[in-house]
Amino acid sequence: MDRRKFLRTAAVGTAGAAALAAPAVNAQSAKTITIVSTWPRDFPGLGLSAQRLAERIPIVSNGALRTEYFAAGERVGAFDVFDEVASGNSQAYIAADYYWTGKHPAWAYFTSVPFGMTTPEWNAWIKFAGGQELWDKLGAEFGLKALPCGATGAQAGGWFNKEINSPDDLQGLKMRIPGLGGNVMSKLGASTVSLPGSQIYENLVSGAIEATEWVGPYNDYFMKFYEAASYYYTAGMHEPGGGLAFGMNKSWWESLSEYEQAVITACCYEEHAAQPEEASALNGEYLQRLIDDHGVQARQFNDDVWDAFGMAAEEVFEETRDHSPLAAEINDQYQEKLREIAGWRAAAEVTYSNQRNRIFGLS
Amino acid sequence: MDRRKFLRTAAVGTAGAAALAAPAVNAQSAKTITIVSTWPRDFPGLGLSAQRLAERIPIVSNGALRTEYFAAGERVGAFDVFDEVASGNSQAYIAADYYWTGKHPAWAYFTSVPFGMTTPEWNAWIKFAGGQELWDKLGAEFGLKALPCGATGAQAGGWFNKEINSPDDLQGLKMRIPGLGGNVMSKLGASTVSLPGSQIYENLVSGAIEATEWVGPYNDYFMKFYEAASYYYTAGMHEPGGGLAFGMNKSWWESLSEYEQAVITACCYEEHAAQPEEASALNGEYLQRLIDDHGVQARQFNDDVWDAFGMAAEEVFEETRDHSPLAAEINDQYQEKLREIAGWRAAAEVTYSNQRNRIFGLS
Repeated sequence: MDRRKFLRTAAVGTAGAAALAAPAVNAQSAKTITIVSTWPRDFPGLGLSAQRLAERIPIVSNGALRTEYFAAGERVGAFDVFDEVASGNSQAYIAADYYWTGKHPAWAYFTSVPFGMTTPEWNAWIKFAGGQELWDKLGAEFGLKALPCGATGAQAGGWFNKEINSPDDLQGLKMRIPGLGGNVMSKLGASTVSLPGSQIYENLVSGAIEATEWVGPYNDYFMKFYEAASYYYTAGMHEPGGGLAFGMNKSWWESLSEYEQAVITACCYEEHAAQPEEASALNGEYLQRLIDDHGVQARQFNDDVWDAFGMAAEEVFEETRDHSPLAAEINDQYQEKLREIAGWRAAAEVTYSNQRNRIFGLS
Repeated sequence: MDRRKFLRTAAVGTAGAAALAAPAVNAQSAKTITIVSTWPRDFPGLGLSAQRLAERIPIVSNGALRTEYFAAGERVGAFDVFDEVASGNSQAYIAADYYWTGKHPAWAYFTSVPFGMTTPEWNAWIKFAGGQELWDKLGAEFGLKALPCGATGAQAGGWFNKEINSPDDLQGLKMRIPGLGGNVMSKLGASTVSLPGSQIYENLVSGAIEATEWVGPYNDYFMKFYEAASYYYTAGMHEPGGGLAFGMNKSWWESLSEYEQAVITACCYEEHAAQPEEASALNGEYLQRLIDDHGVQARQFNDDVWDAFGMAAEEVFEETRDHSPLAAEINDQYQEKLREIAGWRAAAEVTYSNQRNRIFGLS
């Protein structure tokens, strides 16, 4: 999803920004972390996750690290958080790092790319297979240091006002789908746009667009897309997992003690795990509500459509590699580790899941 | 895996137990957590993960919480850690809670059960779908409070000295496989045993057993089972995921401040994520080494075999339910949430994974 304008125009929450702190044993030496977020205040899933992190750091540090949290638009616009933190004006942002692909296309790998890693695979790459080092290398070019903090899990393929039975059905289709996933759709003849979340519903109802992707059942439920597009493709190629970012000013990060870095890392990792787990716990229930209460028809793309997505994605990756040596280095290491990590998971967890799901009738 | 006797007889590491503490700002008020583990010192994966947790708590608490860590046999035997902590003699154990099924069969659900949840599914259940509450209810009967702390991911189906092409091939098969997974195999005519890890290799080479399961390629590599059993079934039904436990004395846990509880929770969640991610990053490489360097033949059970596993597992769950109202309550809530959580994941992440793996040729 791309919430750029949605977030820029989001209303400032009533709560406003306030310093969050547990009763501090270290009150005299307490540091305050100013956090600027790309999500509106109290936004389900994403926004609540960011706020939970901001509340958690003071508790886990016993007040040694305080936070002040600004939702999108409360201090700077959602997409201004990058410059706000790179300049050192604030200490940290919470965002999807693929919002910065205009600055460098390789930022995409540190959120999610078409046919890329699922969240468990991406986590293995980031923490134990060289991903964090490449993220640091890219971040250093902009004065930033990022840690994983939140994830949506595998996003749904999206909402369509007709069935997609062959790649031909994508020709001329007016769809809201941003990022590299949007590039894949464009190569297959779709007319893609990157509408802000707040404008998707009206464009869908008016017929200005015929399809849109968003996140998954729990998030999508509240968007009411089913009123104009009742076919819901539950699996998609465009954002299979990965993670969101707690992006910090690099000089500030390096000025912290090992203790302060440990608290921030532990809290980010804790929230990084929690956000997709929460969605996993809720998506099944909300999908059922969509089907039962709103007549939504769940669908899967067939193999022909998936094959077309795959061929188009190859072209998109080649274009990304051509940007710069660093983009090629990140793409190539990512693709190599994807095959290594996902290869084992295919042979073990995915094979197991398929057998259990077949026997239990889950699909 | 069941490492009971293996762990009891494990040599005490040279490092011994030592209080681990970062330079403490809170030295005067520091509390020491005595942790007893079921894993031998420096045991790859499991043991190193437990030690990493013990080192992390003092750092994240800036010395307010110190730890002294005892590997299996260094303070009490591996399987004596339950009583050691329930009695309050130590504050916490690190173990797989299904080791305590002799005390109550429902402990199994808080590690892993045949045809059960994968680790991401189990995490969603524990943290956001009632699992922790049921774990607390069971724990309270024994004076314990447990948190998730580590996981192996989906375990491999195991090592066999012949191909398994039908359920008939399991008749009379002498296999080392403990837990409810072993019960499933027994129902299909296998002769199962629960050998400690340290004795598996010699029994396999002598022919006393013809098959064994252990963990996954990274852990299994060092066990050299391939010398006597070269067919490696990469997916299995017996331990599909779930998690390990940081089990605390309940009264002690309740005596802690919100701050102290937050540090312990954050560190446990951090390590709970890290352990399976580390294995995911290494399993692919080690599977390839097993194949290339040791002639291991990777295999999958066919649908007939999986169907037989499934029918036998149903009987095992019925027997577990019959134990007590609490066992039935836990089983039934677990099975309901499994279908809800895994249903969505089947429709999204698993479908995506299958399509990507098909197109990339991953299996």
